[in-house]
Amino acid sequence: MRALVAARPLFSDLPSFVRSWLPPSSFRAFASASSPSDLDLRNQSRGGLPRFFSDDLPSRKARSEFWHMAKVLRMKTDDRVELFNGKGGLVEGCIQSIDKTGVDFIAQEDQKVILPQGMQWQVFAAFGTLKGGRADWLIEKCTELGASSVTPLLTERSSIISENRVDRLERVSFAAAKQCQRLHQMVLSPPIKFSTLLDHISKSKLCLVATAEATPLLNAVNSSAKESSGLLIVGPEGDFTKKEVELMLEAGGTAVGLGPHRLRVETATIALLATLVMWSDSQEMI
Amino acid sequence: MRALVAARPLFSDLPSFVRSWLPPSSFRAFASASSPSDLDLRNQSRGGLPRFFSDDLPSRKARSEFWHMAKVLRMKTDDRVELFNGKGGLVEGCIQSIDKTGVDFIAQEDQKVILPQGMQWQVFAAFGTLKGGRADWLIEKCTELGASSVTPLLTERSSIISENRVDRLERVSFAAAKQCQRLHQMVLSPPIKFSTLLDHISKSKLCLVATAEATPLLNAVNSSAKESSGLLIVGPEGDFTKKEVELMLEAGGTAVGLGPHRLRVETATIALLATLVMWSDSQEMI
Repeated sequence: MRALVAARPLFSDLPSFVRSWLPPSSFRAFASASSPSDLDLRNQSRGGLPRFFSDDLPSRKARSEFWHMAKVLRMKTDDRVELFNGKGGLVEGCIQSIDKTGVDFIAQEDQKVILPQGMQWQVFAAFGTLKGGRADWLIEKCTELGASSVTPLLTERSSIISENRVDRLERVSFAAAKQCQRLHQMVLSPPIKFSTLLDHISKSKLCLVATAEATPLLNAVNSSAKESSGLLIVGPEGDFTKKEVELMLEAGGTAVGLGPHRLRVETATIALLATLVMWSDSQEMI
Repeated sequence: MRALVAARPLFSDLPSFVRSWLPPSSFRAFASASSPSDLDLRNQSRGGLPRFFSDDLPSRKARSEFWHMAKVLRMKTDDRVELFNGKGGLVEGCIQSIDKTGVDFIAQEDQKVILPQGMQWQVFAAFGTLKGGRADWLIEKCTELGASSVTPLLTERSSIISENRVDRLERVSFAAAKQCQRLHQMVLSPPIKFSTLLDHISKSKLCLVATAEATPLLNAVNSSAKESSGLLIVGPEGDFTKKEVELMLEAGGTAVGLGPHRLRVETATIALLATLVMWSDSQEMI
């Protein structure tokens, strides 16, 4: 008897622009030296088993949709693989058979649930007015770099974001999370108004606001207390108003400078996030 | 008598995809606090005079092509502006008249020549196989973040880059340099082979190679000697071969880890460069 768990078709609900999966070789693998053993599974660059996304993680056996990936990787019957669901769940198993309609996967252990690793960075950026795929790109790169969440920010100079765009960005984020094999999908939150942002800031212990003429980012974080999460805030094209900056700093935000260059919204966001991801990585070694 | 210097039409040789200029408000301005006065001109986010690109910097008066920008910024006769040539030259002056065919600019001082500021990062990345605008994006972001040069790298797993692509990337780089008002254009060097890279590495004092399982980037640079320039090296999709990594480290490269995430070639390049730009910025405050 074949007890097949229906794995949701991965791409049927996605438009063609995100329907292509890249083989893992499209990514470069990076990792810090001497990760403790428990981190190995969380480390997406650990070079372990091939890992495939599946909405449902089977407890025993599943007909799954990753045949295309399996084909690209030239996988064969009996090859060992992992399935992940983007919510921290991970199951190791092997391939029983592959054909053009799917893959029969047999679980060889119970589902593991992995907790998020390292500092959790929550990005708030005013990208509602960005054109030419720049918002897509911002979301894709935040996903790759491991942001915990991204929230579109409505400000005086960037006061709207269309619903269409939010829908599209959700698909971009979902596709990127699968592509880079994030064990925990990035959360794309609904847009918030500036007043709501101030609430978040006043409740947070670490909140970095990208601001002209401020203390360089790394000087600011090196002198901050160690926290497990932080808010990163980047203003719109044309920047925050002076009043907005004042209100954020009053609410408890720390102004940080991003160097001498003129950066677009999406570049500032990625530069800020990337630097803090590298900074967290360096802190774990101390 | 009108002694008009012919300013080269800025966009006539560019395809439409780079022909649009963004108004400065498309950029966010960032700067470190308390820059010494001489840095003010180099600091692209200083919020000073509107700055326009011109191939030739007039010593007295010029008919120039930035009327579109001037119009977007609602500039008027007698408004003060700066012209820059992307080679370090800068001239301050004012607008004598604006019409649809151009702007009459009158220089009000001699040309200043500004030297490049801060650490000079030379990027070597194997992006010949990247698709979907990812190489364009890499070049644009390296330009914005102030890389001194970018050199396409030919490796065992990424051994070609088409001439068409190099031409296109040159246009992307040129357009981005003007858009972000870099006083010094980024150099897009011709592709080099891996053996040539090894020569560069052995001649450099600081060379960081993005490598899986290596010391975190910031730990590595914090323990390195202070230099005025450095090479940043990022491998292709599928990464360098083991042999290639060995050869680079033997030649004097330092392996650096970029955190626990799976990063694409372009993301790794930007994450590495952005972090080092922020790091340089923080060092200048010490």
